Amino acid sequence: MTLAATVDLNCDMGESFGAWTLGQDAEIMPFITSANIACGFHAGDPGVMRQTVRRALAHNVAIGAHPGLPDLVGFGRRNLDISAEEAFDMTVYQLGALAAVVRAEGGQLHHLKPHGALYNMAATNAALAEAIAEAIYKVQPELTLYGLAGSELTKAGEKIGLRTAHEVFADRTYQANGTLTPRRQPDALITSSEAAIAQVLRMVQGGWVRTQQGPEVAIRADTVCLHGDGAHALEFARQLRTALAEANVTVQATGAVPPAPAPSGR
Amino acid sequence: MTLAATVDLNCDMGESFGAWTLGQDAEIMPFITSANIACGFHAGDPGVMRQTVRRALAHNVAIGAHPGLPDLVGFGRRNLDISAEEAFDMTVYQLGALAAVVRAEGGQLHHLKPHGALYNMAATNAALAEAIAEAIYKVQPELTLYGLAGSELTKAGEKIGLRTAHEVFADRTYQANGTLTPRRQPDALITSSEAAIAQVLRMVQGGWVRTQQGPEVAIRADTVCLHGDGAHALEFARQLRTALAEANVTVQATGAVPPAPAPSGR
Amino acid sequence: MTLAATVDLNCDMGESFGAWTLGQDAEIMPFITSANIACGFHAGDPGVMRQTVRRALAHNVAIGAHPGLPDLVGFGRRNLDISAEEAFDMTVYQLGALAAVVRAEGGQLHHLKPHGALYNMAATNAALAEAIAEAIYKVQPELTLYGLAGSELTKAGEKIGLRTAHEVFADRTYQANGTLTPRRQPDALITSSEAAIAQVLRMVQGGWVRTQQGPEVAIRADTVCLHGDGAHALEFARQLRTALAEANVTVQATGAVPPAPAPSGR
Amino acid sequence: MTLAATVDLNCDMGESFGAWTLGQDAEIMPFITSANIACGFHAGDPGVMRQTVRRALAHNVAIGAHPGLPDLVGFGRRNLDISAEEAFDMTVYQLGALAAVVRAEGGQLHHLKPHGALYNMAATNAALAEAIAEAIYKVQPELTLYGLAGSELTKAGEKIGLRTAHEVFADRTYQANGTLTPRRQPDALITSSEAAIAQVLRMVQGGWVRTQQGPEVAIRADTVCLHGDGAHALEFARQLRTALAEANVTVQATGAVPPAPAPSGR
Repeated sequence: MTLAATVDLNCDMGESFGAWTLGQDAEIMPFITSANIACGFHAGDPGVMRQTVRRALAHNVAIGAHPGLPDLVGFGRRNLDISAEEAFDMTVYQLGALAAVVRAEGGQLHHLKPHGALYNMAATNAALAEAIAEAIYKVQPELTLYGLAGSELTKAGEKIGLRTAHEVFADRTYQANGTLTPRRQPDALITSSEAAIAQVLRMVQGGWVRTQQGPEVAIRADTVCLHGDGAHALEFARQLRTALAEANVTVQATGAVPPAPAPSGR
Repeated sequence: MTLAATVDLNCDMGESFGAWTLGQDAEIMPFITSANIACGFHAGDPGVMRQTVRRALAHNVAIGAHPGLPDLVGFGRRNLDISAEEAFDMTVYQLGALAAVVRAEGGQLHHLKPHGALYNMAATNAALAEAIAEAIYKVQPELTLYGLAGSELTKAGEKIGLRTAHEVFADRTYQANGTLTPRRQPDALITSSEAAIAQVLRMVQGGWVRTQQGPEVAIRADTVCLHGDGAHALEFARQLRTALAEANVTVQATGAVPPAPAPSGR
Repeated sequence: MTLAATVDLNCDMGESFGAWTLGQDAEIMPFITSANIACGFHAGDPGVMRQTVRRALAHNVAIGAHPGLPDLVGFGRRNLDISAEEAFDMTVYQLGALAAVVRAEGGQLHHLKPHGALYNMAATNAALAEAIAEAIYKVQPELTLYGLAGSELTKAGEKIGLRTAHEVFADRTYQANGTLTPRRQPDALITSSEAAIAQVLRMVQGGWVRTQQGPEVAIRADTVCLHGDGAHALEFARQLRTALAEANVTVQATGAVPPAPAPSGR
Repeated sequence: MTLAATVDLNCDMGESFGAWTLGQDAEIMPFITSANIACGFHAGDPGVMRQTVRRALAHNVAIGAHPGLPDLVGFGRRNLDISAEEAFDMTVYQLGALAAVVRAEGGQLHHLKPHGALYNMAATNAALAEAIAEAIYKVQPELTLYGLAGSELTKAGEKIGLRTAHEVFADRTYQANGTLTPRRQPDALITSSEAAIAQVLRMVQGGWVRTQQGPEVAIRADTVCLHGDGAHALEFARQLRTALAEANVTVQATGAVPPAPAPSGR
């Protein structure tokens, strides 16, 4: 028997830059409950950030800062050997920049999720994780920290007193120790939509995940990461929402979502 | 007879970047009452911003955001043909970034002064000026906007309802229409410290300035711009403070300055 | 009666950057005879440059450097108030970077065409035009300089002794003084493919162009600029090639094109 | 008994950027025989590169490209997880950019030495080392590759057929396996000028170095790295030159140095 369950669906948004467009923000936005918006270091520029914030507010989607490494050409996906202090500083900076954009549009920031290599490094490196958590705590302690379920990042958030959201992946396989199968391994990805949806339901309703080594392990699934690009992203988002509805899973952003602003002029 | 007068002394600060150091922040800070801190587009990086904010808080110096054009190699000094919307967006972004750094250090932002070419363009271009004023108004309407005395920028601030500070220059000559003599003209600069100090006293206590064409014109002098580099910057700051003290001019930041924070840990 | 005529068709290429894709390089390449490849300042990165050079060599398309202003977020389209010396330096740098990529792939550089705002500023600013021409002359004097027909840029190239290619536009209207109608004017663009093709044939075969003020003016048309993006770019390229072939216009790159390299390994 | 010996003294140069100055290029240049000039990714801009090249040519100092990681704020000192292909591409790009600057000034490029983290990663990562060596080989195979003595980088250069220069450090201690003592260890640095000079003489004249573990190990010392900043950089350069002269060590750039250009106009 499974209990009534709730889950958030998040997606990286605002990853265009200048003349370049990336992702299907307009199409995906109606299917998600929280948007992680790039803050200019790995993607996004001040104009893209404003447009993306406006779109999220129009859909009542909770807005999160999505800070990345200062590596535009690498899209923030390459590990960079930064110090904990640098991680702290770049998180504060990007968080503040997006918070101002949100405020200018009459909304409020809801969460923060690091991007790409910064997310991955913070999942296993406690010093970086604590620096990121401290940055949020010192600037806006009411924000929720999104991090890989069971990682050093969510642990650091909980330790300092932040609300955290444990993130799981629909299309990634898991290892017996609860970590994701590395992408370079052939069995890292779940390519069948049905299998991916089944995994989400098990994690959200059952609190466990099947692992590549056989045994099931417990996992906390507060939020599911959806992809914003790729040929099937939109179709999968639609299927997942339908499946969650049929399973009586409530889909909503974690914690208290700031109220939507009154219509703005500019 | 001159009345009791008050003036603010501001200086651009935090203009180092990465491995590169610029300015004499530590030496100049004790002599000023407000610091305009670079926000990463023309100078400054998240770490430099934090160190500079910390130093300003330690000296009870009012902190301002100092947003610039996205032109690092040109130090934000070259005119760039941006739209009003781009001016709005880059102001919101940089303002937010610095505000977060200040908050992380336990302080509060006090003002905003655009840098270099953005300052100059906004002095004469009403559309850019209004975009900058609107950016501040929508993010933190309690901030004071610093702009060239009598310019489109201060006008735009007043129009939208911001507190403004009219800025004057100790070492620049003025034209009969109240504008600065362009730098390319041979008589643009006042090189004698005595003459520069005399000009400040006339502007602050008398409310007027002598012009290159002869006649005196009225000028509002809320804040005087000091330079943070150059061989004589420190010596001139010292002389000016002495002269202002002897003339019974109170030197303090404009408006209500946010209280200094309790000592912070990190 | 029109004489046998020859013309080059050029297109801006390699305008992707990092994770972002722009343009339809693979589709357009078969229809052009020279490719202007972005050099990293306004678009392009070292990897994109290599891939684009390789593609051009595979199609025997003449390769040109396409240097731009250091304004990635603005795609090099915003005027920036640079000195002639800065124009010289940024042209040398970008030209050299692309030349090395071409050499590593076994090819040779053929021409240089400035991008966007640098192209436009150099069309009317003689000092910038001369700086760009001098940069080419000092690094690779055998290159051809592509510039707006009858502009300061082609004039500067001819003055210093470079081979030049006068560029015309299929879809832009012209003024009685031979300049392009500014884009902000409602009649700046020719939207009908038939009209655009007719204009090209008149310029290439007749050496004249109809102007918005009525009279025809003489124009030198060595190369026609094709667009690499937009819904109809590919279709128009196809139609223009067909029309040129039917009119017995030879389509080939200007001057002597370096021979294609032997197949390369990497 | 020691034989007549020859060594090159190299120094990183042109590490200023825009408004920021770094290093004592003018003071150090007379004491060195080869200059590694930053190429814009970690330091240097096109104008700084031109000025530095001009200064090197004026002193008959051999000019090398000094490509770095695209990490301006980190000065190219932080490891970045790049692919071999990215290392190849960024080396080609930066090498070409500097080569064009040198050519515009009438000189010729002599060598290439990777900077900072790129140098360190290539010392131990054979794939990166081979990509860098291949980049040079495909663009200008006559160049000399400077790398850590006995490293993967010099090995890769020799394998592909490049001339190489094995680099040693005056002020770093060595391990029994011939590697440098990591900087984080307390005994990594030699702080006494006398000890540093003695180490250089042993390496250059004797071909061996004393190690922290006791035994002496063989080392090939074609070029010694001097530092261009720091309080004692200039004094040490002077002392080292004097000591080398007294020991009858010839100080000159490795291999055939391109002839100096005739005086240039611009």
